[in-house]
Amino acid sequence: MRTTKVLLEESEIPTQWYNVVADMPNPPAPPLGPDGQPIGPDALAAIFPEALIEQEVSGERWIDIPDTVREIYTLWRPSPLYRAHRLEQALETPARIYYKYEGVSPAGSHKPNTAVAQAYYNKKAGIRRLTTETGAGQWGSSLALVGEMFGIDVRVYMVRVSYEQKPFRRSMMHTWGAEVLASPSDQTEAGRRILAEHPDSPGSLGISISEAVEEAASRDDTNYALGSVLNHVLLHQTVIGLEAKKQFDKVGDYPDVVFAPCGGGSNFGGAAFPFFADKAAGREVRLVAVEPSSCPTLTRGHYAYDFGDSVGLTPLLKMYTLGHDFVPPGIHAGGLRYHGDSALVSQLYHEGLIEAVAVPQLATFEAGVQFARAEGIIPAPESNHAIRACIDEALQCKERGEAKTLFFNLSGHGHFDMAAYDRYFSKQLEDFEYPEEAIEEALHHLPKVAEG
Amino acid sequence: MRTTKVLLEESEIPTQWYNVVADMPNPPAPPLGPDGQPIGPDALAAIFPEALIEQEVSGERWIDIPDTVREIYTLWRPSPLYRAHRLEQALETPARIYYKYEGVSPAGSHKPNTAVAQAYYNKKAGIRRLTTETGAGQWGSSLALVGEMFGIDVRVYMVRVSYEQKPFRRSMMHTWGAEVLASPSDQTEAGRRILAEHPDSPGSLGISISEAVEEAASRDDTNYALGSVLNHVLLHQTVIGLEAKKQFDKVGDYPDVVFAPCGGGSNFGGAAFPFFADKAAGREVRLVAVEPSSCPTLTRGHYAYDFGDSVGLTPLLKMYTLGHDFVPPGIHAGGLRYHGDSALVSQLYHEGLIEAVAVPQLATFEAGVQFARAEGIIPAPESNHAIRACIDEALQCKERGEAKTLFFNLSGHGHFDMAAYDRYFSKQLEDFEYPEEAIEEALHHLPKVAEG
Repeated sequence: MRTTKVLLEESEIPTQWYNVVADMPNPPAPPLGPDGQPIGPDALAAIFPEALIEQEVSGERWIDIPDTVREIYTLWRPSPLYRAHRLEQALETPARIYYKYEGVSPAGSHKPNTAVAQAYYNKKAGIRRLTTETGAGQWGSSLALVGEMFGIDVRVYMVRVSYEQKPFRRSMMHTWGAEVLASPSDQTEAGRRILAEHPDSPGSLGISISEAVEEAASRDDTNYALGSVLNHVLLHQTVIGLEAKKQFDKVGDYPDVVFAPCGGGSNFGGAAFPFFADKAAGREVRLVAVEPSSCPTLTRGHYAYDFGDSVGLTPLLKMYTLGHDFVPPGIHAGGLRYHGDSALVSQLYHEGLIEAVAVPQLATFEAGVQFARAEGIIPAPESNHAIRACIDEALQCKERGEAKTLFFNLSGHGHFDMAAYDRYFSKQLEDFEYPEEAIEEALHHLPKVAEG
Repeated sequence: MRTTKVLLEESEIPTQWYNVVADMPNPPAPPLGPDGQPIGPDALAAIFPEALIEQEVSGERWIDIPDTVREIYTLWRPSPLYRAHRLEQALETPARIYYKYEGVSPAGSHKPNTAVAQAYYNKKAGIRRLTTETGAGQWGSSLALVGEMFGIDVRVYMVRVSYEQKPFRRSMMHTWGAEVLASPSDQTEAGRRILAEHPDSPGSLGISISEAVEEAASRDDTNYALGSVLNHVLLHQTVIGLEAKKQFDKVGDYPDVVFAPCGGGSNFGGAAFPFFADKAAGREVRLVAVEPSSCPTLTRGHYAYDFGDSVGLTPLLKMYTLGHDFVPPGIHAGGLRYHGDSALVSQLYHEGLIEAVAVPQLATFEAGVQFARAEGIIPAPESNHAIRACIDEALQCKERGEAKTLFFNLSGHGHFDMAAYDRYFSKQLEDFEYPEEAIEEALHHLPKVAEG
């Protein structure tokens, strides 16, 4: 009988995370403070523990994974690498398609890989509370999951419109014992100011970040946790790609192309960076970040210093951005809505070392449904972006008679996104091409920075 | 590092199902027709393929699993056996707790184990359509999942109140390509008759079964599929217990007690029957069926011949029953609402070979939340019943200083049941002890049968 899943033993969970900085041809552009000068680690100490700040600026290739973190990883890791036999058959492609399934985590996505690590280091630093923001709830639920495990209280500022429209991710967070507030809330200065002006504000990810950061900065026992974008977050996610490489070894195969969804970059970084190590060593492998054409950060954004949040509380990061006041179109249901992107992913893309492609929404859901009917698993809308790009490549392989090896990160399941599938089936979703004027306009909103 | 998950290779997926009938001290009580006489296999031929009817009446100990079925099983099987280290710590119990996690299937429960097999045999018999009923949607979504894989059209009659209140399981079925109708519908005689009398009927599982059976019986290209109760369904589910035994072998342990939720019986039969084989051979192992105290079939029902559906279309089965016109209390959110029970489970219980315990609703949710906070996975409300009973046993072990090995079937995740958790957290759920008068009253509703 053919093998579907390539499995690893728990003892094969990586013992070190991979830091892509060590293999980048140029050092990463530093984060800047409000004065336009590179910030030191101290600037982050109010909201992050020292160990994470060290990881944020580290140039070491390998960073040890603490035993406690690996032990919690065993609750769902190693995650399986699937050979998509049935999808290949459905596509009649000579390509071999593999996917890594991160939906096996209790929160249903790859996000807990970093949540465990962040909770661990915060606990070790004596932190008793963590604040964070969440939109649809994938990140908030991941932090809620691990907070209880480390005896850390978790408070999640959840974008109000999601809080009201997507109650079940909220229920998940309650089940794991987290406190969930609709944001803007009356608990912070930022929230109160916004509520005073707009009592009916639906909230935004930017507002939620501002609230969570403000609270963390103002309390000694409280830190802040972010689910993507930052270097240490991408670092923790490299367990995905590291495991995948071991799994490819087991079956004697290796990807010609790696696809991963790309919003803030932790999904892509986690799956693709470990393969970048091989590429840097001369191996031929294409790494493709897949983003929505309605939020086309890498493919159409500006490579410039910008804020990580919409209010402008964070340091400036050099990244591809649509402007920190970018508002994702309401018609877009597929996640990956962040205005910017990881600085590491951005720099690698800028230097031509990785690729990016933008795909329209309807085509991603079409791909997700085709995948579900062949392979069973109903993917998260974010993951559908990678599936779309991978299927397109597989169909090209068919046309050209090429038996390439394709790999994508199935970053999560869609159990909490069925409303988006409903909207797809009932034809309430549309494609949306982000307008050229808006992209030009964004140039004028970028903070002025005298780059050294 | 300690091991959390005991894994098997795909090649270790069982090659045969285990038929408990071979090890029962007495032959199973036969199903009876409307005339009170045992029915022959022919009576079922209008709605089931011959291969499944053969399995339904077989006395063979082992029945081969077709390669095609095993191949589809590899999409999620073998399922992991977890050692619940973190739950043990939280309970401070000397007991060793293990659970088999069936929520890894794409439909999120153990139900696809039999759906694959049923679709396979129907396809082989030339059947092009399958009808079934579903309440909350676990079974309907499992059949939808596999229908597409075998090129069989699936029509699901979904209890109207669930159709309206639980849209996301419905969306799942759509994603996999099934047709879903609110029941009662205008597509069947039974449905039309009920709608004429009660245009606003919320539906019931009994009505949905009647509609699905009526349609299957009236069309040559269409058969019916049932998700529990029948012998062949329990047979297919024995992959759970068979795998678990191999996994216990690997770690050199063996359960003193096996717990599984019990509604129609496929969950319990699947997990526990393979251990019954050892018990029949003299090994000491307790097998405990756990049911809700609001639907206490085994613990308080009558052991008698009764219909499988509420309208009275099915053959009579000898089983523990609360009466085929039993209506589960509205306050009950925890699944396992069937009025009767598998005839095999019922007979084993009647003969004192297995145990049963009824647990109140609030205590099951309390157990589920405690489990989720320790182990991560949010369990289905059905699974919470087994967790409750297992935790109670583990706490007894603590009191007595006994290091027993406990095993339960974590039959599914709760991702589509968060509304029930919400009701639990907001104190909208209550305990409900099924009233003694109702149980006495049920005696008068049982069909009159002259038993031979």
